[in-house]
Amino acid sequence: MNIYTYKRGFGGQFMITVGVIGATGYAGSELVRLLINHPNVKKILVGSKSYAGEKYSDIYPNFNKKLEEVCLDADLSGMSEKCDVLFLSLPHGISSHQVTQKMVDECVIIDLGADFRFKNLATYESWYKTKHGNPSLNEQAVYGLCEINRQNIKNSRLIANPGCYTTASILAAYPLISENLIENNSLIIDAKSGVSGAGRGQKLTSLYCEVNESLKPYGVTNHRHTPEIEEQLGLAIDKEIITISFTPHLVPMNRGILTTLYATVKEGVDLKQIENAYNKHYKDEQFIRLLKQGQLPETRFVKGSNFTDLGFTIDERSRRFIGFSALDNLVKGAAGQAVQNMNIVFGYEEELALETVSPFPI
Amino acid sequence: MNIYTYKRGFGGQFMITVGVIGATGYAGSELVRLLINHPNVKKILVGSKSYAGEKYSDIYPNFNKKLEEVCLDADLSGMSEKCDVLFLSLPHGISSHQVTQKMVDECVIIDLGADFRFKNLATYESWYKTKHGNPSLNEQAVYGLCEINRQNIKNSRLIANPGCYTTASILAAYPLISENLIENNSLIIDAKSGVSGAGRGQKLTSLYCEVNESLKPYGVTNHRHTPEIEEQLGLAIDKEIITISFTPHLVPMNRGILTTLYATVKEGVDLKQIENAYNKHYKDEQFIRLLKQGQLPETRFVKGSNFTDLGFTIDERSRRFIGFSALDNLVKGAAGQAVQNMNIVFGYEEELALETVSPFPI
Amino acid sequence: MNIYTYKRGFGGQFMITVGVIGATGYAGSELVRLLINHPNVKKILVGSKSYAGEKYSDIYPNFNKKLEEVCLDADLSGMSEKCDVLFLSLPHGISSHQVTQKMVDECVIIDLGADFRFKNLATYESWYKTKHGNPSLNEQAVYGLCEINRQNIKNSRLIANPGCYTTASILAAYPLISENLIENNSLIIDAKSGVSGAGRGQKLTSLYCEVNESLKPYGVTNHRHTPEIEEQLGLAIDKEIITISFTPHLVPMNRGILTTLYATVKEGVDLKQIENAYNKHYKDEQFIRLLKQGQLPETRFVKGSNFTDLGFTIDERSRRFIGFSALDNLVKGAAGQAVQNMNIVFGYEEELALETVSPFPI
Amino acid sequence: MNIYTYKRGFGGQFMITVGVIGATGYAGSELVRLLINHPNVKKILVGSKSYAGEKYSDIYPNFNKKLEEVCLDADLSGMSEKCDVLFLSLPHGISSHQVTQKMVDECVIIDLGADFRFKNLATYESWYKTKHGNPSLNEQAVYGLCEINRQNIKNSRLIANPGCYTTASILAAYPLISENLIENNSLIIDAKSGVSGAGRGQKLTSLYCEVNESLKPYGVTNHRHTPEIEEQLGLAIDKEIITISFTPHLVPMNRGILTTLYATVKEGVDLKQIENAYNKHYKDEQFIRLLKQGQLPETRFVKGSNFTDLGFTIDERSRRFIGFSALDNLVKGAAGQAVQNMNIVFGYEEELALETVSPFPI
Repeated sequence: MNIYTYKRGFGGQFMITVGVIGATGYAGSELVRLLINHPNVKKILVGSKSYAGEKYSDIYPNFNKKLEEVCLDADLSGMSEKCDVLFLSLPHGISSHQVTQKMVDECVIIDLGADFRFKNLATYESWYKTKHGNPSLNEQAVYGLCEINRQNIKNSRLIANPGCYTTASILAAYPLISENLIENNSLIIDAKSGVSGAGRGQKLTSLYCEVNESLKPYGVTNHRHTPEIEEQLGLAIDKEIITISFTPHLVPMNRGILTTLYATVKEGVDLKQIENAYNKHYKDEQFIRLLKQGQLPETRFVKGSNFTDLGFTIDERSRRFIGFSALDNLVKGAAGQAVQNMNIVFGYEEELALETVSPFPI
Repeated sequence: MNIYTYKRGFGGQFMITVGVIGATGYAGSELVRLLINHPNVKKILVGSKSYAGEKYSDIYPNFNKKLEEVCLDADLSGMSEKCDVLFLSLPHGISSHQVTQKMVDECVIIDLGADFRFKNLATYESWYKTKHGNPSLNEQAVYGLCEINRQNIKNSRLIANPGCYTTASILAAYPLISENLIENNSLIIDAKSGVSGAGRGQKLTSLYCEVNESLKPYGVTNHRHTPEIEEQLGLAIDKEIITISFTPHLVPMNRGILTTLYATVKEGVDLKQIENAYNKHYKDEQFIRLLKQGQLPETRFVKGSNFTDLGFTIDERSRRFIGFSALDNLVKGAAGQAVQNMNIVFGYEEELALETVSPFPI
Repeated sequence: MNIYTYKRGFGGQFMITVGVIGATGYAGSELVRLLINHPNVKKILVGSKSYAGEKYSDIYPNFNKKLEEVCLDADLSGMSEKCDVLFLSLPHGISSHQVTQKMVDECVIIDLGADFRFKNLATYESWYKTKHGNPSLNEQAVYGLCEINRQNIKNSRLIANPGCYTTASILAAYPLISENLIENNSLIIDAKSGVSGAGRGQKLTSLYCEVNESLKPYGVTNHRHTPEIEEQLGLAIDKEIITISFTPHLVPMNRGILTTLYATVKEGVDLKQIENAYNKHYKDEQFIRLLKQGQLPETRFVKGSNFTDLGFTIDERSRRFIGFSALDNLVKGAAGQAVQNMNIVFGYEEELALETVSPFPI
Repeated sequence: MNIYTYKRGFGGQFMITVGVIGATGYAGSELVRLLINHPNVKKILVGSKSYAGEKYSDIYPNFNKKLEEVCLDADLSGMSEKCDVLFLSLPHGISSHQVTQKMVDECVIIDLGADFRFKNLATYESWYKTKHGNPSLNEQAVYGLCEINRQNIKNSRLIANPGCYTTASILAAYPLISENLIENNSLIIDAKSGVSGAGRGQKLTSLYCEVNESLKPYGVTNHRHTPEIEEQLGLAIDKEIITISFTPHLVPMNRGILTTLYATVKEGVDLKQIENAYNKHYKDEQFIRLLKQGQLPETRFVKGSNFTDLGFTIDERSRRFIGFSALDNLVKGAAGQAVQNMNIVFGYEEELALETVSPFPI
């Protein structure tokens, strides 16, 4: 597992320089953590608006003795000239105004924000209540959900890395939708997330004592990951409109997302057909684990890893599909998938820098 | 609020002696905590199979200086002779074999277990995989969900205190069902509970490191609170069969239950009608708080109190009702409701010993 | 325990009006929670700089149906005219500039901040790096550590409520010092606190993900509770200078303080003498619980209550006293002790509104 | 960093087979996690008394798709024949009775238990209240604290891996003692540990609700890591008897140890001398990080990694050294150090399989 070959690429280079803008947020920091163990990464530049000029390991002392870099300014243009790939971990609504065609020509852009995730820009603008900054670049963007979209990702230079809830939801629902096994508009996603998904902003609602030992719903009927899930599931069957109910909840733990899916199965569909659908799509995927009947996903077994665990059953009494997905919101739901996308684009083994088993208990 | 009058009762006695069997479990201990502050309780006897002979405050040092009692044996017969009311906090399947008509004649029995909760004993026996021990006594039992069943509770001497998930679920769904506002079989309950609901048994799955910082579903399609919810909701409309999907999840926190309900609203039903239904049933209930539109229940605000907080909305895009209830599984979901039932039976102010506001943060 | 008599007081009034300024902080909110169950409190005014004009229960929904008040401005002068007692829960350095002789004449002031805690104002000004606002009022102030200072508190109208670490530390060390059992300058206090002690400010260091699942020391050699402990322990033996080492640590839990004390016992002192000292000072104190040999304090058994649990032993190998105290930083360490002080001043039973047993698990 | 050379060894073999007995405990499982990413490990055999015959990834689903092994019996003799190195993660008192000279001749034994940690067997037998099973083998054993004992470890075939508290304590105190900077018997170690240190046994005291949101001391004056620390520190200066006070506390978090050290500095010793001492011993150690003045260790920054972070200061007021160490009890405090020992014995780069930066927040 230790010898990787560089299969195709950009000028034949084997080792690459990567940049992370927004490197001092939680997702950005997770990116840096993964990248420093990537055998093909020769240098990591870290950019941060808030901490420019400070040593990265002074902000995140876990990097002491592992990364000596000082934070650069969050300068997309300057960074893209120096890097082979640039990861953007910025608040929504910024990157579509700052990324340019020139940057995309210079280096691969992997954007962890929402700006380039929507094919239908009207949907984006309505849910995000902002004008999109670059519709023309948006057309070049590829939605970076690796397991679903790998072929398109391979040839892309502007990748819109999916949201955390979105990855968990789409991976769980995709086989059902694309194999036509459920009443599409019956799909309900009850999602639960750890607190790191809210980022590192100094908000009252993120304080320890406000979150700890409590559980709450939020963003009910209006969470922005809803239209992202709907659009991607609609694309799975060339149907524009799938309407879901998506309800997120905040769980007192650092990391992890669990989604619970409910859907009415189509007349005559049985458990075997559903298993076949999941196997068809995922049985060769190294980062998706289909659990045996009787096993159910738990976030503790994916934490710190790039895995998505999937489990499901049919509730015979109500004729409903009940399914579950678990992933780490900062890894497969953000930084891990971003690295996976980088690996796909650069022709590296997809597992590179993502080999870790989840430590337990942690 | 400090002067309570004894309105009706058993031989005119004002002060009563209470017994708690299973007093060293979490629910039993919570009962003791509430009862020692009850102004009409003159004596508390604590019974425990595992700790008979030991001082109660040696097992639970929070009771040091507040309760000097030594644990008695878990002897229902002996205790019922000495007490005006006897609380049973035992594993399921015991009380229906041990409670006798004589005991019920001697003292009021409030059973926190499942044995007397079902009108339909076939349902009970099938889900609990056991034979019911006393069908004749079962006919005298009244289901102790105070807000729904208060009139029957008043005249009962054998009260089946509801389960924690059940209380949260029924209180949230009852107005919808009884006012005929939803497609009944469309009801889905996605429930989340803190760990104390699993009790004090020394099981691998209850260990700190197995539970902390993780989230998991369990009992999917087969949790025993399902038929209890279904029977009670069916009774609300004189209809035997309502089928729901009920999916519990374990949340890394000590206490609290949150339920998320999904249901298809009937053609033409709007939010106003739903608000009216909730107001009709609950606006005068002191332990139910209907939140304003825009507010949503969080378990932290009910923890340690006997309140159930309810909030809801309609998802206009999918035409679904989405509702939430939050309560403390050990208070309104167990011990608090048991005390509330005692207050109802003995004609005390219903709020007695239950006046506490939830401490926050705790 | 339910009938309280008003023994002495201010114009013979039985029921009082209380004001809480800073009512929307954690300590202020805990005060409100305790006071609404106080049988002699007829009205509570809540003052808040940040939330003036907002309904209190909109900020803290746990108070829904229990308190209908709207937040007033944090106006000490206006509030003191309307109240019999005014609690100040403000950042340090404010109250000494705002409290006036007139206010103290009008109503009893109980200040939860540090401004009036020091007899030696030079010490205060040096550790708090600020000028004291009212040295003359400071002379009237009484240090409100109830168990040590009860007689002085009774006749005071300006009470400096002690800090949370301070209460835990002094209560644990006082018998040793005043009975001359240890080498005074050998005293080391290793203290551990839950996160609510840091307040509700929106700081990076109070975010859930920064605190959860980690432990850290802070304020090493310079925490401001150090000189407060030293001054009070010095007063115990009429000796100005006792020098301790005090090291606080932040523990991932909402509430609770545990202190671990190390001290060299004087030649010839044995465990029995130490037990005698603790018994002499505390055996009749209702809020102090001396644990039996072999038992040790745990924060879970005092949480939500006004108790301080004390335990200790002698390490025969090293001839060191090792002792422990546990309390709830928001109750005995702040709001509970403030209510206890109010009860002492107004001649109420000291336990009023503080009868609660710690709920467990919570 | 990706090319490692095999420098010396056992028959010239490059790839090795490793066995882990007790692989289903927390430390054992952490060993497996680390070893599957070790480039020189060709096969891992997992032995478990409780789960023999079961698939390892059914017990720990985080290993799904990463380890296909079925648990073998906990058969030391059989395993030692098949392995180049055998890790023992067993309850104390077993390995000294089961390990034989033949096994040690066949393969390297790294014992994570206490049986071979003591030079003075009388101390061992008195604190562990058991007879040592093999004093002759004990003489061959080397204490596996890598940074202190590396030269001896290199040539050993029976390594006693230190305890978690012990590693944290000795690494923090060693430079002080060996450079003669403190009054040796003044050393006090106040230690705090996460819950995984208590193992996976189904004990009441390890239940989530008994541990969560609370803090407690335990093992006061009698914790078994005390004599282990004392013996090793004594060896540092060829002095048999150093007496410390060691007080452990249980912290509500999965992983991590923090120790706080107090000691009286010798007359004339200043901070600079202390810094020099730490630098002398540790500045080239890759797994020890000396923090800058003003920085203090926090467990979150070492969690999941093999680092020990050290920080310290002098409290000028009391003339005390106050120092801190933080490490992950399952990594540097157990499995990580065991792998580090293996790397030393087999001549691998010491960092192999231990390169990970602590993920944060996790």
